[in-house]
Amino acid sequence: MTSPAIPGGVTAAGGFSAAGVSCGVKKKGPDLALVVSDRLASAAGIFTTSRATAAPVLVSREHLRVSGGQARALVANSGCANACTGPAGLEAARLMAVETARAVGCEVEHVLVASTGVIGVHLDRQKVGTGIIGAAGALHRDGHADAARAIMTTDPRPKEHAVRVETPSGAYVVGGMAKGSGMIEPRMATMLGFLATDAAVAPGLLQRALVDAAADTFNAITVDGECSTNDSVFALANGMSGVAVDERSHEGFVEALRAVCRELALGIVRGGEGATRLVTVHVTGAVSDADAKGAARAIANSPLVKAAVHGGDPNWGRLVAAAGRSGSAFEVEHARVAIGPAVLFADGRPFGGRAPDAARHLAGREVTLAVDLGTGGPHEATMWTCDLSAEYVRINAEYRT
Amino acid sequence: MTSPAIPGGVTAAGGFSAAGVSCGVKKKGPDLALVVSDRLASAAGIFTTSRATAAPVLVSREHLRVSGGQARALVANSGCANACTGPAGLEAARLMAVETARAVGCEVEHVLVASTGVIGVHLDRQKVGTGIIGAAGALHRDGHADAARAIMTTDPRPKEHAVRVETPSGAYVVGGMAKGSGMIEPRMATMLGFLATDAAVAPGLLQRALVDAAADTFNAITVDGECSTNDSVFALANGMSGVAVDERSHEGFVEALRAVCRELALGIVRGGEGATRLVTVHVTGAVSDADAKGAARAIANSPLVKAAVHGGDPNWGRLVAAAGRSGSAFEVEHARVAIGPAVLFADGRPFGGRAPDAARHLAGREVTLAVDLGTGGPHEATMWTCDLSAEYVRINAEYRT
Repeated sequence: MTSPAIPGGVTAAGGFSAAGVSCGVKKKGPDLALVVSDRLASAAGIFTTSRATAAPVLVSREHLRVSGGQARALVANSGCANACTGPAGLEAARLMAVETARAVGCEVEHVLVASTGVIGVHLDRQKVGTGIIGAAGALHRDGHADAARAIMTTDPRPKEHAVRVETPSGAYVVGGMAKGSGMIEPRMATMLGFLATDAAVAPGLLQRALVDAAADTFNAITVDGECSTNDSVFALANGMSGVAVDERSHEGFVEALRAVCRELALGIVRGGEGATRLVTVHVTGAVSDADAKGAARAIANSPLVKAAVHGGDPNWGRLVAAAGRSGSAFEVEHARVAIGPAVLFADGRPFGGRAPDAARHLAGREVTLAVDLGTGGPHEATMWTCDLSAEYVRINAEYRT
Repeated sequence: MTSPAIPGGVTAAGGFSAAGVSCGVKKKGPDLALVVSDRLASAAGIFTTSRATAAPVLVSREHLRVSGGQARALVANSGCANACTGPAGLEAARLMAVETARAVGCEVEHVLVASTGVIGVHLDRQKVGTGIIGAAGALHRDGHADAARAIMTTDPRPKEHAVRVETPSGAYVVGGMAKGSGMIEPRMATMLGFLATDAAVAPGLLQRALVDAAADTFNAITVDGECSTNDSVFALANGMSGVAVDERSHEGFVEALRAVCRELALGIVRGGEGATRLVTVHVTGAVSDADAKGAARAIANSPLVKAAVHGGDPNWGRLVAAAGRSGSAFEVEHARVAIGPAVLFADGRPFGGRAPDAARHLAGREVTLAVDLGTGGPHEATMWTCDLSAEYVRINAEYRT
């Protein structure tokens, strides 16, 4: 089953509307996004593994628990992370939900909350409150683009994607939007993802599908190895299409969700700070899934590998070094390293003469780095990252004020 | 017991001579170092944990095992790592030991070997052989400075240190030299350390002392989080001072060894690629030693923290975010963050008014970042790192050729 891409982002699915408005938390530009389902939807969420959890994450987790996985609205602000803000921050996040519930006309626990921006700064509750009322008044079936823009910090482009899924019992749509990866901006933080479908999916099944789809998409990208205090991905399923997803049709639904997550995740990497290239790291020949992922992650986060890609330098020794220090089982005498189509190291032998082919591949915008760990094991993993440029340092070394 | 610093580096202790010569493995400059003890010395070594282990590491490990921890000579080349070079590389590393044994007049297993430089390039055995003969002819009591220069790759400065230890039964000296940290140069790799003492120390005790001393010195620094294929630190103890170190005086010896290792390790960080600041990361309030070290390492390796230090930006939220994602137990409501003398976050409250004090501290060359994890636990850890500059990227993005 192929699911054709369609326009419409987070409001592509039936029964969803959205808005993005300016409320003054950021110095300029839209900074408050609202996504609302016409009727109560199944809801799922996955969150940062950081122990410095931001207030909106605590509130959203609580609401998903109390509601048994149901929601009507997602509200998000950019410009302030509402993290490390103590009891006052928690109150501010709760108030965002209260104001949204009032404006939309739903229970407080049916509102999910997200924030992204500076850590350790208090959220201006008045501004956010005014923004929520404005956004509720601006809700629109085509509000997806405004909403996608309102969650951006320094993301160079908004990130939206949607697919239409045909099934024997009818069609449904999965749409979504996301903002920048890692801690993508000097003052800002966080990756956020919002997914909306008009399939009918029970909360438990939706949660499982979201975890599955995120595993090799949102959880397989890295810009700078930094996991933020606010990372959140939510999915809403309102059933408006009349198509129900059950255990039998679950795999097709996960595929569609994964397709949307993957596109959004790659968009995040392409828009990484200072990034000029999308890098696919593919590791094979691992004795376990954890080893495959561990080696892929070590390579994808290696500043030396990323700087070499930026410079177009086919320095494959750095790939071996990163894989070797990753802790994953690695047998150098059977390992294999390729940059694009050029195998530069195999069976303990370097192939220096192929460096020009590798350099040509590195000159492109999309780069593939492949390492076989040489253990003969059947496990493999893919991660996506971007190159490391002087621009990344420049952006992140600037004074906040 | 304070041990005053003295000149003389790796040949400061009695009965050691050294030389550094050019043999043409590097395009220019000295690239072959030899350190020899007048008599058979106890020997200890610690090595990279990478599974992509370079040939010289394999040979040195084997020699330490076969000899039962005894050595006469250390030989090292810069410009070629002799890593990922297969059976031919292993033969080249063995040949380095054979040539050195012949030139010095000792058993092959009493020679320890190290290499640093490009990965995946074969070592020119003829050049190295000629260099060994030249170095053996140039051995000198004052050869420390030449040797320290011959192991440099792009290290901005040689790194040498020595201390004199007074004990009730006489005095002894611990000296040493080191080269650059992490994978400090685009084409080069590796940190190397060579320590030499004229105390008499049994091999087992020497190995324990080296492991202890390295734990909070060489193993507590990071430039870019990259562990190389060739990292090696060796210690020789030839007993020429007539002072024996036993279980009772062991602690004093470890202290002296640690003092030398610490100075060399800090020199490595100060000379990190593109580095402009020495950053001390101090973590307290951890529930375990592993948690303390884990959080300190996450902070010290965070590109966002390091870029903020480079820019003089008192962005304490990045410290919280790095500690929070480290996996160590962390209680944000009791955590405490200080940059230099300025406490910027405590008891869940940010103190924005103190940012100018923190910015003043960041303007200096030596920066201290302190994070209490807020668990009330008694464990703490210190790591040293440098800032992340655009120059780091520039250096590492350059074409190798």
